[in-house]
Amino acid sequence: MKLLYPTTLRLNRALLSGFPTVTLHAYDAKAPTLPEDLLDAEILVTWANSPANLSFAAQNLKQLRWIQSLAAGPNDVLAAGFDRSRVQVTTGSGLHDRTVAEHALGLLLNAARRFYEMRDWQLRGQWPGHLGGPQPDREPGTFRTLRDARVLIWGYGNIARCLAPHLTALGSVVRGVARSAGVRGGVEVFAEDSLPRLMPETDALVMILPGDASTRHALNRERLALLPRHAWVVNVGRGSSVDEDALYDALEKEEIGGAALDVFEQEPLPEGHKLYGAKNLILSPHAAGGRPQGAEELIVDNLRRFLAQQELRNKL
Amino acid sequence: MKLLYPTTLRLNRALLSGFPTVTLHAYDAKAPTLPEDLLDAEILVTWANSPANLSFAAQNLKQLRWIQSLAAGPNDVLAAGFDRSRVQVTTGSGLHDRTVAEHALGLLLNAARRFYEMRDWQLRGQWPGHLGGPQPDREPGTFRTLRDARVLIWGYGNIARCLAPHLTALGSVVRGVARSAGVRGGVEVFAEDSLPRLMPETDALVMILPGDASTRHALNRERLALLPRHAWVVNVGRGSSVDEDALYDALEKEEIGGAALDVFEQEPLPEGHKLYGAKNLILSPHAAGGRPQGAEELIVDNLRRFLAQQELRNKL
Ligand SMILES: NC(=O)c1ccc[n+]([C@@H]2O[C@H](COP(=O)([O-])OP(=O)(O)OC[C@H]3O[C@@H](n4cnc5c(N)ncnc54)[C@H](OP(=O)(O)O)[C@@H]3O)[C@@H](O)[C@H]2O)c1
Ligand SMILES: NC(=O)c1ccc[n+]([C@@H]2O[C@H](COP(=O)([O-])OP(=O)(O)OC[C@H]3O[C@@H](n4cnc5c(N)ncnc54)[C@H](OP(=O)(O)O)[C@@H]3O)[C@@H](O)[C@H]2O)c1
Repeated sequence: MKLLYPTTLRLNRALLSGFPTVTLHAYDAKAPTLPEDLLDAEILVTWANSPANLSFAAQNLKQLRWIQSLAAGPNDVLAAGFDRSRVQVTTGSGLHDRTVAEHALGLLLNAARRFYEMRDWQLRGQWPGHLGGPQPDREPGTFRTLRDARVLIWGYGNIARCLAPHLTALGSVVRGVARSAGVRGGVEVFAEDSLPRLMPETDALVMILPGDASTRHALNRERLALLPRHAWVVNVGRGSSVDEDALYDALEKEEIGGAALDVFEQEPLPEGHKLYGAKNLILSPHAAGGRPQGAEELIVDNLRRFLAQQELRNKL
Repeated sequence: MKLLYPTTLRLNRALLSGFPTVTLHAYDAKAPTLPEDLLDAEILVTWANSPANLSFAAQNLKQLRWIQSLAAGPNDVLAAGFDRSRVQVTTGSGLHDRTVAEHALGLLLNAARRFYEMRDWQLRGQWPGHLGGPQPDREPGTFRTLRDARVLIWGYGNIARCLAPHLTALGSVVRGVARSAGVRGGVEVFAEDSLPRLMPETDALVMILPGDASTRHALNRERLALLPRHAWVVNVGRGSSVDEDALYDALEKEEIGGAALDVFEQEPLPEGHKLYGAKNLILSPHAAGGRPQGAEELIVDNLRRFLAQQELRNKL
């Protein structure tokens, strides 16, 4: 049985070995086709594949039964036209927890500490004195520190669970929103029907939702209006979960404090797009993750399960 | 006995009461003088006083015996000409731990995650694609994440002890430098004679030194040359501890990865100063602290000690 693994990242091949019935084959995930002798593969590992490569695979890997994506949100695989009645897809959720959590923390601090605004002054060669020196401490109606800040994480999965303890350690009060309510790792998680109550009590809203039909424009005009004027929105999930036109208007009218976006409805954000110049908008070019960590362990664990005909981890 | 407290911050007066022999008097720390009826005060609490106010106090508070500064580094009080044979000075060290630690963490993430560089692209209306998407993970000779980063904190006092656990939780390997060596809170702290060995093994050097004669230009040309080319320097202590000319040269010649400075030899940094435009220089306008937290508890504890003729906390 052939397993194809991509050369778009450095995988330690030795960590994948030890399964006598499985042969390991490297492939170029950027190439528009796959070599003839690999077309009978049953397992495909994907990372940063070109759309052409994935659509070629969808057409030509006739014996494919399982795709292990190393992305937490494998929207590319889902869009490539694989026959889902035959091919199961597992995600790389868990491989990006630490990198995305770190980035989200950085964006929150960038917002609270106004580093983006300091940068603008620096580039003009001017001292941003109003942002430093003696200053009020944790004034109500401001977001200037994570200490005592009320942070709401919408999409309380693997990444959120990794992020929350860092926020708590800095003094934030963290709550979550997911499909089902309950206490997860000591954090109160609510269902979406609680949003009308939660949003007005939020200093920073962190979106870590997957990009599927159920989350499209989850943060819409109506819900944005529920946030306090000083509240920030951080999105490290998928751009499709935010209505960007509504967000732009809220920023320009200063109905919210600001937004730090790592993901956008269209990426790269086209030149001339209005979001580049929106007030209090911090732009990050889908840079939060992009570096799967521990991929071999996930592949191997799922490979063992696959061979034993057990339920796979991270199954979509 | 009169205790004068400043109105430059909101102190909870009720938390200072309960000492029958002490009367509490508010004063304007920005005014060039003090009212006649307060000139027999024995205790002065200072925060963000004007230089004129402090020098008036030094000349006219003839019965003064103790100054409680709320700044961690009361350089302003020390420069005002108080008669130190009569007046003891205690600092606000400990009141700024969480705010300065948070800011330092933010600057480190700003550096590692290249938010300042993303901002420059955003302002030009361009997508900084090279800073996002699939990317190498923890390549040796780079500082792109705090995970597995070797962070050296020079000046391992109250603020450092507050910062270190956050870095450790994010996966950094933290070491410290102080006047005396030893293990502090689980972190290995070295004396300055170890710097030649430690600096070449550093991805990020965080300076949290006080600004006195012993620390002047602690980070000089020779020591900068010991850092790896990719290493970052973060300074949230005092500007005088860094030779800015040497730092500027190291930045321009790309002999180090970058620098994030919250403090400068001259503040505000004068318009036209070369540091505004230095390569990979992140400027923050002395914004790390500026918000004493828990001032009342420190004042009261020291007041009790003062009345009981015990050693004061944070004595200089
Ligand atoms: N910016 C980047 O570079 C980057 C990197 C990696 C991942 N991501 C994105 O981040 C997303 C989350 O990753 P993860 O690993 O944390 O995923 P995860 O563990 O699957 O968690 C997803 C969370 O979203 C919740 N959710 C899903 N649909 C929802 C809906 N319609 N309404 C409310 N909540 C909903 C889930 O609720 P339940 O827990 O109740 O099921 C779960 O809490 C990925 O899908 C990916 O798109 C971005
Ligand atoms: N940017 C801001 O807004 C801001 C805000 C608050 C404070 N600060 C600055 O931060 C400084 C540190 O604050 P802190 O509360 O952490 O002070 P601290 O608790 O007194 O710690 C100072 C540390 O520096 C070390 N040190 C002093 N002189 C040294 C020398 N010559 N060589 C090597 N190490 C030396 C001390 O070593 P030992 O432990 O061995 O004695 C100690 O570890 C303050 O003095 C202040 O200037 C800046």
